[in-house]
Amino acid sequence: MSEPRRVTIQYRVPYADTDQMGVVYYANYLAYFERSRNELIRETGVTYKELEAKGYALPVAEAHLSYHAPATYDDLLDLTSWVEGLKGVRLTIHCEVKRGDKVLVSGHTVHAIVDIKTLRPVRHTEEIRHLLSCD
Amino acid sequence: MSEPRRVTIQYRVPYADTDQMGVVYYANYLAYFERSRNELIRETGVTYKELEAKGYALPVAEAHLSYHAPATYDDLLDLTSWVEGLKGVRLTIHCEVKRGDKVLVSGHTVHAIVDIKTLRPVRHTEEIRHLLSCD
Amino acid sequence: MSEPRRVTIQYRVPYADTDQMGVVYYANYLAYFERSRNELIRETGVTYKELEAKGYALPVAEAHLSYHAPATYDDLLDLTSWVEGLKGVRLTIHCEVKRGDKVLVSGHTVHAIVDIKTLRPVRHTEEIRHLLSCD
Amino acid sequence: MSEPRRVTIQYRVPYADTDQMGVVYYANYLAYFERSRNELIRETGVTYKELEAKGYALPVAEAHLSYHAPATYDDLLDLTSWVEGLKGVRLTIHCEVKRGDKVLVSGHTVHAIVDIKTLRPVRHTEEIRHLLSCD
Repeated sequence: MSEPRRVTIQYRVPYADTDQMGVVYYANYLAYFERSRNELIRETGVTYKELEAKGYALPVAEAHLSYHAPATYDDLLDLTSWVEGLKGVRLTIHCEVKRGDKVLVSGHTVHAIVDIKTLRPVRHTEEIRHLLSCD
Repeated sequence: MSEPRRVTIQYRVPYADTDQMGVVYYANYLAYFERSRNELIRETGVTYKELEAKGYALPVAEAHLSYHAPATYDDLLDLTSWVEGLKGVRLTIHCEVKRGDKVLVSGHTVHAIVDIKTLRPVRHTEEIRHLLSCD
Repeated sequence: MSEPRRVTIQYRVPYADTDQMGVVYYANYLAYFERSRNELIRETGVTYKELEAKGYALPVAEAHLSYHAPATYDDLLDLTSWVEGLKGVRLTIHCEVKRGDKVLVSGHTVHAIVDIKTLRPVRHTEEIRHLLSCD
Repeated sequence: MSEPRRVTIQYRVPYADTDQMGVVYYANYLAYFERSRNELIRETGVTYKELEAKGYALPVAEAHLSYHAPATYDDLLDLTSWVEGLKGVRLTIHCEVKRGDKVLVSGHTVHAIVDIKTLRPVRHTEEIRHLLSCD
């Protein structure tokens, strides 16, 4: 894996996401990470929905977030993700939430690659590596 | 059905539920209604989870809310529900959100009674009427 | 008010919005309504954020939803809103959630037009009528 | 600080918190952490609301979560928090989400101790140390 593909989507912050401090509530960034991941995966040519249909799932094993500055209501954010690593059955995806040039929140999630029925790690990850364009 | 059973639970408002107006975001009351409904059903002697295991589901067909006054962070609310009506395969549940004596939000949800597999209305609702103690 | 302006935005459903029935959880549609209202207001030439800066707020007094069919993960929905009525200090906004030609959820919210500091109804609504292009 | 005070509350999982995998959506655990923190702080004799009234805020600088096993609908969870460290103006709170003896999710949040008006780190943290019973 040389330079990982980066995918960016825009997201408009609704009132729903804010809290009484007047900023986006901290848990919502994990939903932003998910929105961003979905589009990263879609860009590889297969959607997460299709991955599930093929019998895979990518449950989250870890999540790590650093909050640098708050996003606020009606901000038009850039959500950018890229694959940071894929070792065995562990996939790490990095995500950045930006307003203009300013990184507001950054972090990464670690996913297990499992069989959607048994929830056990898949043995051979060639297909999923290929699907996620990690080769 | 004479006087319907009323069930009340307490709920502490987290920061998560507030928005930048400093009050509970309006969509969250539908989750409060659900929490309250769950306990109403539990009190009948069968949980909603058990209803699902028996092959039923109660998808929401309508929801109606009146917002009288806002709930705020750290309020300890009373969530009260009761069955307002059961006609054929339509179940109506009323819910009230109170802080002390003050009704903050009131409303009702209308549920279809369906087979959880086919999502089609169930024919004979005797069992569910009995389960929900509506007789 | 002749034919009201209709504004439509697209919205991609994340996993975050689904529940264990495999469909969008019923409360989330109120957040969809809000996203749609925000864009309706923006299209009038003033954003809700600017309305607040001018000293107005539009707190929700009522919400009514009809659930016709479920939205599911990764659906690309159309969220459409229009002003249904403005009488005195009560503004009614209708919203429709569609997937292709199919209306999944429809409903309306009733808003009070208030002074953002006192939260009391504003006396003269000419400016806000004008701002919302309701004349 | 010898043995930190641990505070546990119970929490019933609503449908609202689940996703289409049939488990609690990963972002919601950060709201669980918040519910648990609120009660930890309350137990020290001052609520977070009172801390804010005294001019302090504890914005989140980092969050770290490990997902061991999923929580599901209607689970009655134990949410336990304790202060893991307080160095200068950085407060670390650990949180565990358990179902019976099984730890489902664990993690910690790092908070800055700031002036609620300026959002700048407070100089003298004696009062807040005392308020949080960290001495």
